[in-house]
Amino acid sequence: MARLKTIDWVDNRVRLIDQTLLPDDIRYIDITDIDGMYEAIKVLRVRGAPAIGVAAAFGLYLGVRGFSGGSVNEFLKFVDDRAAYLASARPTAVNLFWALDRMKKFVHTQAESSTDIDTLKKHLLDEAIRIFEEDKRMCRAIGEHGFELIKDKNCVLTHCNAGGLATSGLGTALAPIYVGQERGIVFRIFADETRPLLQGARITALELSEAGIPVTVICDNMAASVMASGQIKACIVGADRIAESGDTANKIGTYSVAIAAAYHKIPFYVAAPSSTFDLKIKSGIDIPIEERGREEVAIFGGAKKTVPDKAEAFNPSFDVTPSELITAIITEKGVIYPPYTVNIAKMMC
Amino acid sequence: MARLKTIDWVDNRVRLIDQTLLPDDIRYIDITDIDGMYEAIKVLRVRGAPAIGVAAAFGLYLGVRGFSGGSVNEFLKFVDDRAAYLASARPTAVNLFWALDRMKKFVHTQAESSTDIDTLKKHLLDEAIRIFEEDKRMCRAIGEHGFELIKDKNCVLTHCNAGGLATSGLGTALAPIYVGQERGIVFRIFADETRPLLQGARITALELSEAGIPVTVICDNMAASVMASGQIKACIVGADRIAESGDTANKIGTYSVAIAAAYHKIPFYVAAPSSTFDLKIKSGIDIPIEERGREEVAIFGGAKKTVPDKAEAFNPSFDVTPSELITAIITEKGVIYPPYTVNIAKMMC
Repeated sequence: MARLKTIDWVDNRVRLIDQTLLPDDIRYIDITDIDGMYEAIKVLRVRGAPAIGVAAAFGLYLGVRGFSGGSVNEFLKFVDDRAAYLASARPTAVNLFWALDRMKKFVHTQAESSTDIDTLKKHLLDEAIRIFEEDKRMCRAIGEHGFELIKDKNCVLTHCNAGGLATSGLGTALAPIYVGQERGIVFRIFADETRPLLQGARITALELSEAGIPVTVICDNMAASVMASGQIKACIVGADRIAESGDTANKIGTYSVAIAAAYHKIPFYVAAPSSTFDLKIKSGIDIPIEERGREEVAIFGGAKKTVPDKAEAFNPSFDVTPSELITAIITEKGVIYPPYTVNIAKMMC
Repeated sequence: MARLKTIDWVDNRVRLIDQTLLPDDIRYIDITDIDGMYEAIKVLRVRGAPAIGVAAAFGLYLGVRGFSGGSVNEFLKFVDDRAAYLASARPTAVNLFWALDRMKKFVHTQAESSTDIDTLKKHLLDEAIRIFEEDKRMCRAIGEHGFELIKDKNCVLTHCNAGGLATSGLGTALAPIYVGQERGIVFRIFADETRPLLQGARITALELSEAGIPVTVICDNMAASVMASGQIKACIVGADRIAESGDTANKIGTYSVAIAAAYHKIPFYVAAPSSTFDLKIKSGIDIPIEERGREEVAIFGGAKKTVPDKAEAFNPSFDVTPSELITAIITEKGVIYPPYTVNIAKMMC
């Protein structure tokens, strides 16, 4: 049993787990050109904000390494064009834009002192590898900090997937679990299935069980009942966006877990890289929430109708957990405790 | 648009909605013999404790009306035998046993003063019709009492199905909604889909939308978020068993709704007939909770795998909501408020 490698750079190509086939089939695919990466990002063969960023960085390199016969300016224009193409694969993925912008800026800066196109290509690959390595280090640092918080808590509940399969490394919310495993401490995990798209059942349960960590999937509505049974000693979730106040947007259902954890006096931790903090946003009220289509709730797996046609269905993708319900926020820079407005500002400055 | 008739006695036969076909197909089936009723109860063509009781009472009559050529004692023995057969259709359905026992006792008592088998058969039909009519009156009384509590609350959240399709009448949790509709007050309903078996999506949303009541299905993990939006003014759920303390066992996920309602200061009501109270049970800790098979969580609709084989899945069917989270319990005899131990005893004596 071993941890799955979400993304890797092997023999001058990108190796990905095709996440559209999970949990039935764990299949690695090799991507050698930008069109393959565009498609992989678009149809969610690779998913999770940090992993998408890494995939895009490598994808851009794949898209420009074959460039030949032009000037440096033509090369830079080609890089920008290929980056714009990749950026259109998922129009709202912040890490996708972030990684591509970083790659573009880097090569433009390098071009000020180097006029050899092969050298510039090499710089792009090096930058992609740096993004990849930084992501792995970020995960490990969150894992180390988080492990200190939960090392005496043998059973942890998580929601959605903020695991290795969303990053290049150990994940965020699941990183402390993997660090524990390395040190011989086996946590037992309850994974909310996470309706409507079941990332908890399909992805979290898969990566944990493949890594040899005992995991039990429950329906989202069972979490409170399992807490009442006394088994759950801590909850850890990821985050999509954290406001200045500490209010945290994450996958729909996170808020419900946080309320139940507070009722049962169980610590509730958010694990996220510092890039998740959006200090322009004062509080949770100002975080926009994406609403997705009816069919995700009303038609299971695109096949079986579960809601009658005459009934409405509502499908918000995220919810906001107010900071009063959050015991601590685990970042790669350290653990942040209340009062959040003060302590987030301190940590992020 | 009209309320669906779950069960009816028409032209000397039982007419049922085949609930296994919902929500795709609203089809009525006529049942004319006991084997048909046994099968309908067993495979859940008819479901919901009150409706099963009514179905069993009529089913027993169907099973003995063709008896001929024996003595009264032979007839009574035949009744007992046919009742035992029907009782085996669902081994844990309390209302099934209750209705069959009541039918048996009634005919045995009548047989003390009547030796005419056709008269005894007629008595059995009359008793089945009485059980049917009493069920409808119970629903209406709960509806009237409940309506007084929620008449100024225009938007209500419910979980699972404690509606008309679980009874012969207006249902229990949904009865106040239908009473409101009769009086020109249209409530808007949010229905938790209710994993793993989706009774909220398939059944509650169906019966409400067919009756012309606006209903929005959400995943169970969205309830807290909709509460935070300020839309929900009350929660109403049914009950499977209520202890002396008021602690209430109901479909898994009810507890989570109750915790979230308390956090948002939204009233949380339980609606249930007095037959649901089990005063031999002191508190929720003593209520046994049925655990069902892995496949309901791990394989959607018996077809699509959602949990990897190496992962566990836990599937408790019910949870217990402690009475401290319950604003009031609505019964056909009236509304019960805290302190429950005292007031339940008073109402049920």
